[in-house]
Amino acid sequence: MSDETVRFELPQSEIPHQWYNIQADLPRPLPPVLHPGTKQPIGPDDLAPLFPMALIMQEVSRDRYIDIPEEVREIYKLWRPTPLLRARRLEKALDTPAHIYYKYEGVSPSGSHKLNTATPQAYYNKEEGITGLTTETGAGQWGTALSQACNFFGMDCFVYMVKISYQQKPYRRAIMQAFGADVTPSPSDKTQAGRMILERDPNSTGSLGIAISEAVEAAATSGGKYKYALGSVLNHVLTHQTVIGQECLKQMELAGEYPDVVVGPIGGGSNFAGIGLPFLHQNLTAGKQTRLVGVEPAACPSLTRGKYAYDFGDTAGMTPLVKMYTLGHDFVPAPLHAGGLRYHGMASIICEMYDQGLMEATAIPQLETFQAAITFARSEGIIPAPEAAHGIAAAIREAQAAKEAGEKRVVLFNLCGHGHFDMSAYDAYFAGELTDYEYPQEEIERAMAALPQV
Amino acid sequence: MSDETVRFELPQSEIPHQWYNIQADLPRPLPPVLHPGTKQPIGPDDLAPLFPMALIMQEVSRDRYIDIPEEVREIYKLWRPTPLLRARRLEKALDTPAHIYYKYEGVSPSGSHKLNTATPQAYYNKEEGITGLTTETGAGQWGTALSQACNFFGMDCFVYMVKISYQQKPYRRAIMQAFGADVTPSPSDKTQAGRMILERDPNSTGSLGIAISEAVEAAATSGGKYKYALGSVLNHVLTHQTVIGQECLKQMELAGEYPDVVVGPIGGGSNFAGIGLPFLHQNLTAGKQTRLVGVEPAACPSLTRGKYAYDFGDTAGMTPLVKMYTLGHDFVPAPLHAGGLRYHGMASIICEMYDQGLMEATAIPQLETFQAAITFARSEGIIPAPEAAHGIAAAIREAQAAKEAGEKRVVLFNLCGHGHFDMSAYDAYFAGELTDYEYPQEEIERAMAALPQV
Repeated sequence: MSDETVRFELPQSEIPHQWYNIQADLPRPLPPVLHPGTKQPIGPDDLAPLFPMALIMQEVSRDRYIDIPEEVREIYKLWRPTPLLRARRLEKALDTPAHIYYKYEGVSPSGSHKLNTATPQAYYNKEEGITGLTTETGAGQWGTALSQACNFFGMDCFVYMVKISYQQKPYRRAIMQAFGADVTPSPSDKTQAGRMILERDPNSTGSLGIAISEAVEAAATSGGKYKYALGSVLNHVLTHQTVIGQECLKQMELAGEYPDVVVGPIGGGSNFAGIGLPFLHQNLTAGKQTRLVGVEPAACPSLTRGKYAYDFGDTAGMTPLVKMYTLGHDFVPAPLHAGGLRYHGMASIICEMYDQGLMEATAIPQLETFQAAITFARSEGIIPAPEAAHGIAAAIREAQAAKEAGEKRVVLFNLCGHGHFDMSAYDAYFAGELTDYEYPQEEIERAMAALPQV
Repeated sequence: MSDETVRFELPQSEIPHQWYNIQADLPRPLPPVLHPGTKQPIGPDDLAPLFPMALIMQEVSRDRYIDIPEEVREIYKLWRPTPLLRARRLEKALDTPAHIYYKYEGVSPSGSHKLNTATPQAYYNKEEGITGLTTETGAGQWGTALSQACNFFGMDCFVYMVKISYQQKPYRRAIMQAFGADVTPSPSDKTQAGRMILERDPNSTGSLGIAISEAVEAAATSGGKYKYALGSVLNHVLTHQTVIGQECLKQMELAGEYPDVVVGPIGGGSNFAGIGLPFLHQNLTAGKQTRLVGVEPAACPSLTRGKYAYDFGDTAGMTPLVKMYTLGHDFVPAPLHAGGLRYHGMASIICEMYDQGLMEATAIPQLETFQAAITFARSEGIIPAPEAAHGIAAAIREAQAAKEAGEKRVVLFNLCGHGHFDMSAYDAYFAGELTDYEYPQEEIERAMAALPQV
């Protein structure tokens, strides 16, 4: 056992110099994004009040590779390349012939993969003279990352945090404040969108959709001083995350293996895209046949039970219309503990991948994900974020299937973040307070009926 | 700036194969440890009820190098070698000509350097047929590490956690429980030592000394089923931590520099010894002249204001007598937020180094350490543990001295752990609730008067 390598590290010089843009290679291009009023495709100018032009151009770019600015790579050096680990102790615990690898993004200062895109987003805004950013956060991972990125570039940061997470994770607020951010529980009375929700339901626990409405409004009404930053869903966000998969390709080579299956949790899609897109690129252009499996919570099953239709990205209906697998923009998912996966929709790129048969999707109930998290923690030592635990649970299912089939299979998943700020969820799990949620079909159909007509 | 390396990584093959034992090289050997009853030097048999023979032999060994068992190295591979970083962004923030390097031990699954010794301690106990370990924890770093190590080797773990930390850090308990440990706030009514303290002061917030008494008693009265594990102070613990400094020597070579000064926080001494001893070895045998600076909290100034005398390691007077710089075994330090540094005594190795003029010591007030922590976090992205912040504060003082002198100086410190479970302390700091404590001299003298007669 003594010579077995468990960690595959790359030198700093191997941090990618470019992001990979799947839009260059998708067999069928992404459907257009529509203006919520005219229902006509929007152009860059329509997005200009919310995003800097550099990011808008990335959003619609068909260039296969986009250069990573040196200033961004300098920040990446604080934690990238992240390690790839072979989970030999987990394999042993599962008694599986599968080889399980995980990319560990939790080593980033913010504790998750989110800093990969927060950094360039802050950079490009700063370059265009913007002095602060507004955003929403669910689990708190994104808010933490953007707080750090804004701090690195000397910018203000205003975070609308989903109320249930704000209450469950008091120290998330503290860490964002340590980096100088202003944190507001959402829905709040600071915005019209928030006040509207509170009027309807004063006890609302919030949702990502509501918090997005608030953050978008705060930027749009700032008189051009602030812009808005989104931690997932958008094309440029998914593109930024491809540093993960690009590093994995090189690290799997160091390990002398190639994944049969790549799994990752999907809430908005950035984590899964980050590890998956560079492997999809290999499938599309180099004859590889890696299965890509997105994992969503059974309590918020956008891909597996939603409808592929045009819908708003937020709850109040302020954003453009995006064609996506959606549970309806006013769907408020149960207060499960993977706050980062409580989103009614899904990234356009992920939806097209799914619709074009380039990936699979599966939904896993909450209790199975926590059980998987504990199995993983006791084997590998790392307490995963509840979001990340969805990827672990799916990887364990793949490893068990390999065992049943009596086959060696190479499984790779993205351990997108640690759970150090999620211990209240583990506490609740140990106390037997967590349950599985399964949405009644009629509830989903009611939400579907409210989809905008296009 | 683009070619500047900020992280210096070693491959897994460079994890040390041996621990370095300073006892081989100390100009004057360590004073003997005395039996609390007979006041005569104790032998290995006296320690046998508490520790496995392999660790007792390491405790008294004069061998320069001690082989690291392969089973331990296998576990080390989960996070070692840890990265060495050049704090270029901090240097810029301080506008200093100093080059500041930090070794980051917070990447370990337990979040601190403590797992470096927890792992071999669990291993050697397991090898000798022990099925569980008892211990104390202050900040919770040590309890977390031992919980993980026991979990890795399938052993029970009983943690007595200083009550103030138990209250301030609810999620520390949760993470220890996630690894299967049994956690009791100390003083408790589970032991005679705990009951004695509670009788005297029912509102006692506890101390490391009290928790040690409880954990030692729990092991000693287990009928040989369990033994006791200590996270600092003892020679073998400090020896295990030398993997840190050994890796640093190689990494500083990669960086093309050699430290003028090595700083580290000192509570019991294991963190400072871990990074410092391999450099002291170079001072003693290779003509190097690196200054070694231990940093203690002004509220618990064992080296800088204590007395070098024989004293008990615990509060109840159950342990052997050790010659050390002590504030008196019944000294209960103020409830400052660096729980891991609230110890009345100090490792024998550190005390002899200090007494023999092989190192310096300084005491820093609490508010300065939190200020340093925020400066560091906003520069380097990492929220440090309050204990680790003492090292940062001292490194900043060194960097400022270099600036005043107009000299380039190479400063190295050990960032022994992250502060993800210490956000309540940061919260209190931001709320202006923290103060500086300075112990009145008469209080210290009172404690000194209670020192045992030897």
